[in-house]
Amino acid sequence: MTDKIFLELLRRYKAGEVAEEKILDALKKFSLATESFGFANIDYGRELRQGFPEVVYSPGKTKEQLKIIFKKLYERSAGNLIASRASREQFEFLRDEIPEAIFDEAARMIYVDRDKTLKRDEQKKILIVTAGTSDVPVAEEARLTAYLWGNAVDTCYDCGVAGIHRLFAHIDKITSANVIIVVAGMEGALASVVGGLTSRPVIAVPTSIGYGASFKGLAALLAMLNSCATGVGVVNIDNGFGAGVLASKINHG
Amino acid sequence: MTDKIFLELLRRYKAGEVAEEKILDALKKFSLATESFGFANIDYGRELRQGFPEVVYSPGKTKEQLKIIFKKLYERSAGNLIASRASREQFEFLRDEIPEAIFDEAARMIYVDRDKTLKRDEQKKILIVTAGTSDVPVAEEARLTAYLWGNAVDTCYDCGVAGIHRLFAHIDKITSANVIIVVAGMEGALASVVGGLTSRPVIAVPTSIGYGASFKGLAALLAMLNSCATGVGVVNIDNGFGAGVLASKINHG
Amino acid sequence: MTDKIFLELLRRYKAGEVAEEKILDALKKFSLATESFGFANIDYGRELRQGFPEVVYSPGKTKEQLKIIFKKLYERSAGNLIASRASREQFEFLRDEIPEAIFDEAARMIYVDRDKTLKRDEQKKILIVTAGTSDVPVAEEARLTAYLWGNAVDTCYDCGVAGIHRLFAHIDKITSANVIIVVAGMEGALASVVGGLTSRPVIAVPTSIGYGASFKGLAALLAMLNSCATGVGVVNIDNGFGAGVLASKINHG
Amino acid sequence: MTDKIFLELLRRYKAGEVAEEKILDALKKFSLATESFGFANIDYGRELRQGFPEVVYSPGKTKEQLKIIFKKLYERSAGNLIASRASREQFEFLRDEIPEAIFDEAARMIYVDRDKTLKRDEQKKILIVTAGTSDVPVAEEARLTAYLWGNAVDTCYDCGVAGIHRLFAHIDKITSANVIIVVAGMEGALASVVGGLTSRPVIAVPTSIGYGASFKGLAALLAMLNSCATGVGVVNIDNGFGAGVLASKINHG
Amino acid sequence: MTDKIFLELLRRYKAGEVAEEKILDALKKFSLATESFGFANIDYGRELRQGFPEVVYSPGKTKEQLKIIFKKLYERSAGNLIASRASREQFEFLRDEIPEAIFDEAARMIYVDRDKTLKRDEQKKILIVTAGTSDVPVAEEARLTAYLWGNAVDTCYDCGVAGIHRLFAHIDKITSANVIIVVAGMEGALASVVGGLTSRPVIAVPTSIGYGASFKGLAALLAMLNSCATGVGVVNIDNGFGAGVLASKINHG
Amino acid sequence: MTDKIFLELLRRYKAGEVAEEKILDALKKFSLATESFGFANIDYGRELRQGFPEVVYSPGKTKEQLKIIFKKLYERSAGNLIASRASREQFEFLRDEIPEAIFDEAARMIYVDRDKTLKRDEQKKILIVTAGTSDVPVAEEARLTAYLWGNAVDTCYDCGVAGIHRLFAHIDKITSANVIIVVAGMEGALASVVGGLTSRPVIAVPTSIGYGASFKGLAALLAMLNSCATGVGVVNIDNGFGAGVLASKINHG
Amino acid sequence: MTDKIFLELLRRYKAGEVAEEKILDALKKFSLATESFGFANIDYGRELRQGFPEVVYSPGKTKEQLKIIFKKLYERSAGNLIASRASREQFEFLRDEIPEAIFDEAARMIYVDRDKTLKRDEQKKILIVTAGTSDVPVAEEARLTAYLWGNAVDTCYDCGVAGIHRLFAHIDKITSANVIIVVAGMEGALASVVGGLTSRPVIAVPTSIGYGASFKGLAALLAMLNSCATGVGVVNIDNGFGAGVLASKINHG
Amino acid sequence: MTDKIFLELLRRYKAGEVAEEKILDALKKFSLATESFGFANIDYGRELRQGFPEVVYSPGKTKEQLKIIFKKLYERSAGNLIASRASREQFEFLRDEIPEAIFDEAARMIYVDRDKTLKRDEQKKILIVTAGTSDVPVAEEARLTAYLWGNAVDTCYDCGVAGIHRLFAHIDKITSANVIIVVAGMEGALASVVGGLTSRPVIAVPTSIGYGASFKGLAALLAMLNSCATGVGVVNIDNGFGAGVLASKINHG
Repeated sequence: MTDKIFLELLRRYKAGEVAEEKILDALKKFSLATESFGFANIDYGRELRQGFPEVVYSPGKTKEQLKIIFKKLYERSAGNLIASRASREQFEFLRDEIPEAIFDEAARMIYVDRDKTLKRDEQKKILIVTAGTSDVPVAEEARLTAYLWGNAVDTCYDCGVAGIHRLFAHIDKITSANVIIVVAGMEGALASVVGGLTSRPVIAVPTSIGYGASFKGLAALLAMLNSCATGVGVVNIDNGFGAGVLASKINHG
Repeated sequence: MTDKIFLELLRRYKAGEVAEEKILDALKKFSLATESFGFANIDYGRELRQGFPEVVYSPGKTKEQLKIIFKKLYERSAGNLIASRASREQFEFLRDEIPEAIFDEAARMIYVDRDKTLKRDEQKKILIVTAGTSDVPVAEEARLTAYLWGNAVDTCYDCGVAGIHRLFAHIDKITSANVIIVVAGMEGALASVVGGLTSRPVIAVPTSIGYGASFKGLAALLAMLNSCATGVGVVNIDNGFGAGVLASKINHG
Repeated sequence: MTDKIFLELLRRYKAGEVAEEKILDALKKFSLATESFGFANIDYGRELRQGFPEVVYSPGKTKEQLKIIFKKLYERSAGNLIASRASREQFEFLRDEIPEAIFDEAARMIYVDRDKTLKRDEQKKILIVTAGTSDVPVAEEARLTAYLWGNAVDTCYDCGVAGIHRLFAHIDKITSANVIIVVAGMEGALASVVGGLTSRPVIAVPTSIGYGASFKGLAALLAMLNSCATGVGVVNIDNGFGAGVLASKINHG
Repeated sequence: MTDKIFLELLRRYKAGEVAEEKILDALKKFSLATESFGFANIDYGRELRQGFPEVVYSPGKTKEQLKIIFKKLYERSAGNLIASRASREQFEFLRDEIPEAIFDEAARMIYVDRDKTLKRDEQKKILIVTAGTSDVPVAEEARLTAYLWGNAVDTCYDCGVAGIHRLFAHIDKITSANVIIVVAGMEGALASVVGGLTSRPVIAVPTSIGYGASFKGLAALLAMLNSCATGVGVVNIDNGFGAGVLASKINHG
Repeated sequence: MTDKIFLELLRRYKAGEVAEEKILDALKKFSLATESFGFANIDYGRELRQGFPEVVYSPGKTKEQLKIIFKKLYERSAGNLIASRASREQFEFLRDEIPEAIFDEAARMIYVDRDKTLKRDEQKKILIVTAGTSDVPVAEEARLTAYLWGNAVDTCYDCGVAGIHRLFAHIDKITSANVIIVVAGMEGALASVVGGLTSRPVIAVPTSIGYGASFKGLAALLAMLNSCATGVGVVNIDNGFGAGVLASKINHG
Repeated sequence: MTDKIFLELLRRYKAGEVAEEKILDALKKFSLATESFGFANIDYGRELRQGFPEVVYSPGKTKEQLKIIFKKLYERSAGNLIASRASREQFEFLRDEIPEAIFDEAARMIYVDRDKTLKRDEQKKILIVTAGTSDVPVAEEARLTAYLWGNAVDTCYDCGVAGIHRLFAHIDKITSANVIIVVAGMEGALASVVGGLTSRPVIAVPTSIGYGASFKGLAALLAMLNSCATGVGVVNIDNGFGAGVLASKINHG
Repeated sequence: MTDKIFLELLRRYKAGEVAEEKILDALKKFSLATESFGFANIDYGRELRQGFPEVVYSPGKTKEQLKIIFKKLYERSAGNLIASRASREQFEFLRDEIPEAIFDEAARMIYVDRDKTLKRDEQKKILIVTAGTSDVPVAEEARLTAYLWGNAVDTCYDCGVAGIHRLFAHIDKITSANVIIVVAGMEGALASVVGGLTSRPVIAVPTSIGYGASFKGLAALLAMLNSCATGVGVVNIDNGFGAGVLASKINHG
Repeated sequence: MTDKIFLELLRRYKAGEVAEEKILDALKKFSLATESFGFANIDYGRELRQGFPEVVYSPGKTKEQLKIIFKKLYERSAGNLIASRASREQFEFLRDEIPEAIFDEAARMIYVDRDKTLKRDEQKKILIVTAGTSDVPVAEEARLTAYLWGNAVDTCYDCGVAGIHRLFAHIDKITSANVIIVVAGMEGALASVVGGLTSRPVIAVPTSIGYGASFKGLAALLAMLNSCATGVGVVNIDNGFGAGVLASKINHG
């Protein structure tokens, strides 16, 4: 249940079309309502409180658990849905009951793209830049998340600093974006370079791509936290989803 | 030289009051101009490009070097000025020549607050929350930065999760702020709790406060990067300045 | 051989029903007796000394070794038995000879639940709380251990701080429990929040659930050690068994 | 205000001696009441909710801030008071106004020992064991905390495993204690050895004592988390205070 | 070629039975002789210089490479031979050509036990102690190495400190051994306890056995390096072979 | 397009054989030209700018992506080509279209060796030394890279410091080489010893070979960074490719 | 009380010169006797059990505590005495009462050298080698310890691998020593090189000497643990004392 | 004694002016000669073997030791001299006897600049670039070292990537240098950007400049080791001296 649906209800109440009990009931049902299944406490109110239904983190959940949670969210909400870090096996198991669900292999995401009320503002673009081709899966997770949360998204992949003219070739995209997500492994230098070229916020996503001493993304993570450019916020290693959500929240400010 | 001053110049050129050479000269001087002193390359154009003059990072600079750089920026720009992580000794040495300069002991910041053109939008507040009293110096660095960059700022100090009703007592501030900066040491749990209460972006600043296994802020840093709440971006340990800038850039979007 | 059995023997001795040699023999057999198999030294006396037979740590043991040890303990003790971190293959190999043995897939535990003398005191509940569904397997290891050691146990799963009302919905369980075990991965903030809500001891179990910079539970471990709430004791990463035992020892004080 | 004082008030209300407004007022004042000083939010209700007034963590607080907080707690509560990790300078500054305050050099603690209602149960002793003489300051912090919170405390210092008969000489103290706090640096082996000798909970406190590769307590911390003995909960490096509180909560169960 | 063979040659030369060229030739061939195969430089002289032929480290070598090296050593030396950390597949590939070779599954070692001149001195025993059954494979690597290098070896497995009477039951073995190898994972406390019970050197071998925060043996490694007992030397994690060699060198002093 | 081809074009322009537009076009096409495929931005100009076509890093790329990139580089450049860290599967997929491509199993490299203009200067040899046989695959990656980039290369494998005469047997190679690449795992001591024997630059490559506390190359990496010998530059763990390129650049100075 | 003194007593008892009560008394007093001072448990029996009186670790002890412990040991034992890691201030405070005490500035050791019964066997020398001059203080701690424990000691300082001929100039010392202690910071390569030149045990002591990435001795520590040479045992960073004791125990085997 | 002096001697020998004994004597004296002072082994031959006298590492040496070593090198060699990481106190103590010695405060270096035979080749410049002003001291150590070893050196300070046009303003210096040393703290991104702009070798020096999570240079170190640009060799944190030597060796190839 989104704000819009609730406001519609309110207006109909004002117009005398629905009883006040229905309003109270709706509030009670959705705002802080949770449903417990022993292994999970689904938070139905998140859509009302935050504008987007609860996103399911798939690792460590059996395919049966994931299906129950995803289906309940599908039935009790009106917005787009995401199950992040899902496996193809988890997807195959739930697709029969939720035919609208799509699986994005690169982004490891099961999603439902059904919210027709979203307006993607082309004046406030989220730009996603990657250092290399190997960083693309994490970038795709960010891109898909930001898209499903109602943003206009653009990309600029494989623009690392080793051939920095590849980045400058896209200087217009960089200076006109409202938020930039930089996805980079190895030494993560791209975040600092992009941070120095824009006056808008940069979200840096370290990836686990690299030789031995990248220590699975630690090198890029530390580099990004120490960026000499200002206005850079860092999220967890390989956490494209988190970057997509943060960019979306900034964009909707 | 801010955008406003330059636009004024442009308008006067259009009105035939100034020659076109003056425009070119102004652009050349300010947009990408730097001045080198051997030990430093001052970037005068940053004010034009990013809306705020270059901020000086004081550690590792002699008091003579800091004075030269700060004075040059003072003379060649019109905006507010910041020298971060400065010592009182560095301040004492430059105050004679820049009487407007003020030293904030807690925030370890030398600053000049002179830009009368800034409009602090009370509808878009930056809220700064700390877990404890010991985190206040880092928070003050963030607060002063955000203030000098033209934001309305509010604070909520010593609201850590060990007595969580102290946080809920400020629930209105939290839900109405446009950006929230959470400053916490020890286990840094406050970032996740605040992140779950707002639909707006949260900037998490780990501090080096804590017993042995905080490892000078590492514990809080890792905790914040792993926040289960979405929409949290992390900056470096004790980096109140960086948080203030990032919040300001988000706020001005 | 439990305290009760030994006290029964003592009473019968006092009543002249058994000879004093039998008492000495029993003490010698059970209190410090060990039996060596080259690869293992079984400690039969632990049941007498600590009230619960030796628990077998299964990793690194061949299925043959595990069977011998488990069977010996089965024959020479009267209490409940546990082989922790066991595989299904290890279980299949020993079930023929010990038909009472059960395998709990989630908790990775082989156990025998046969001690009818245990009284689970409902006034002194151990409550197990998890941040997410993915933490449930570790929680189940703790729950089963505490149950087999004779405690009343309650659970509250998927109550992480990102939707903190899910936790407050269980405030009664939290304030009435005698010991609380908090199982959480990612940033482990739940331990601090729960620690602030109870005046009873909290046992924090970090789990290895999380994105890259959780470093397999290190982030949650450090967070829990640095908890700003008082009264929190930490056990090893994913060590649900250890938490169950510690809670049981506290509960029986 | 302790439970006892409040219950007294309640009884007098029942007896018609005080008006119901007074009860409401008391509740409002104490249960969740906080007082804000900008830099601090004092939690007066903690005494009522947890049985002991808020403890002040001194590092990072100016002596002025500490004095204000400590004095307010002194005036608004009836229990014993603690300011942990305090410096002599902080103590000197507040002793004029709070003549009852005492400074313990070894434990780095300012405290007020005034609660005459506490009954220290000699049947439920907390025993504090240290590996060496160098661990004594941390142990003293634990001892003083546990004492002020109303426990009978015993000690056994310099009993490390290098001369293990020194430990066995105290076997009676060990087997009869209700909770044992083990304080050890270097390799922290003492926690495991003590853990194997008692059936009661052990709280392990790693200290930063040791040669280079102790890495300021990391070696002992990891050792204690990996203890092969069951029933061991670990607190932060050098955190004697935390151990004292946890032991007290276990003891009062 | 061992010392004995060379001395025999020398004596025959003195007796006029062999020409001096033969002596020079022998020295040249064996003392510093190496044979190169591109991928390897076999050091045939090690037997003469150190009393034991070169030991082959198997990981990272193809089965073809291992076979060539092992066979060459087999043909050109007279002592016992070891290929450490070998796989069964590497063994199967070379057994046809070296029928004397044996594979020890637990110790992951291919060896040839053929040196009949070794005298194992029962008065100078090497004792190998493990904390648990899971540490046995590493202990077996140490035991087999020490045996093949000509030592009398005794063992005492599964004697960890959680049930310390199991260790004291073997106090005679401990106080009479000439060198003691302690093999332990988890917190590695056993090395300190044994170190306090003997006046002879202790070699500590940390193993990678343990829950999460053992970090694959790091916890035990740090603990052993920080042992409060004197006379403890540490080798690499799981390096039973290195411990066996060091013990042997000490024993032959 | 190499320098030679472009200079030929220039000379023909001077001779009036080609129009100046053709020169401009060539420059535009090659010097900074890139071609984008969404997932990749191929940098065709690198050959002109750096003398060697772009090298493809294969991990994280699908076999389809790798084939497209490698084929484009094959068609648009004249130099030798490298796809590093490739799998046999990636190779099999592209060999049909690029029959000249060869796969080196040890070096994990797909390459095309076609540049007949390279002159390998025998007076400026690059020498590659390894500590053990297990380090050979990384050394082969360095060797092949340096060879394809036009250098004379020599090797000296399995010359670790445990039998240091094996190294001194090659003292002539060491003192006559122009650049030396030292490839070593475990403690990486070889880099310091070689560094002390030459007055030429040494490139140290730590490998991930070793027992537990090598921590996948960290031990060798730190050792090499701390080399007491001067003139040692370090590259990433197992990064034979990077060492080969750096040696080549030094050699061509 | 040393073995010799006790045996003398025994012989006199046999000769009828002393009563048997005196023997019992002596045993009781010395073998397992400890004396407690609250802060310390002095282990008088260590001299009888291990052949050398308890050594006092000075850090964290007040000068008063150190004086009491040292004086008691001085009075109740006959052997040489050591207080390790002592400060000059601690020494000045106790020298009045123990005029025989000497302070070695480099080794940071207070000692009493009075045991005339020690025979230093010149055939079993302990050789101490350092990489540089900066490692000498740690080496001196080892040398003095080994000397006071009754060994013949030789040194070879500043023989690091960067100029390896400096080491080979002492090849006779190296090949004739019975035990070698290698003291080195930075990359610690010297341990491996020396380990390859001797067939006797090597004790490696990492020091905290080095540039940034030595991480206070961690680099040398890891290198030594990963030594490719066999027969190397490692002690803690900067722990010259521990190395001296271990060498002494090996030497007296 | 440099190559030149020795060759002069040789020519005079050929001309019959000096006896052959003198040549032998010279070789013996200088090539491998060392002089021992107990605490130090001075390597006089290094000048002959490597072209530059031994450089003295000052930390951990007493001022007396440093003076003896430096004076001996001053008397027995003809080249420039360096004592790195020296303190002013060490300098003051030796200046009386070596009046030519100069102390560079920023570079923490005592040096003697007297070798008139050095020819600095302006065609083969070493360029030193720093990210910020705070990195200048480390850069000065590199610059002075390279200058004293006979190179033409140029600098470009405070050109970090946050204002990347400051770097591009010096593109000519960058593309024309023969070797580039990049000195940067924080995230060290400058090494990658410069590495992508030159076809010559880059030496990266991480500095310990930065906020908390730079962990004293670890962040920059890891970033530089993971540089996506090829041809980058890394030296130790803050090791300007090592970078200067490596650059010099490359430059003289």
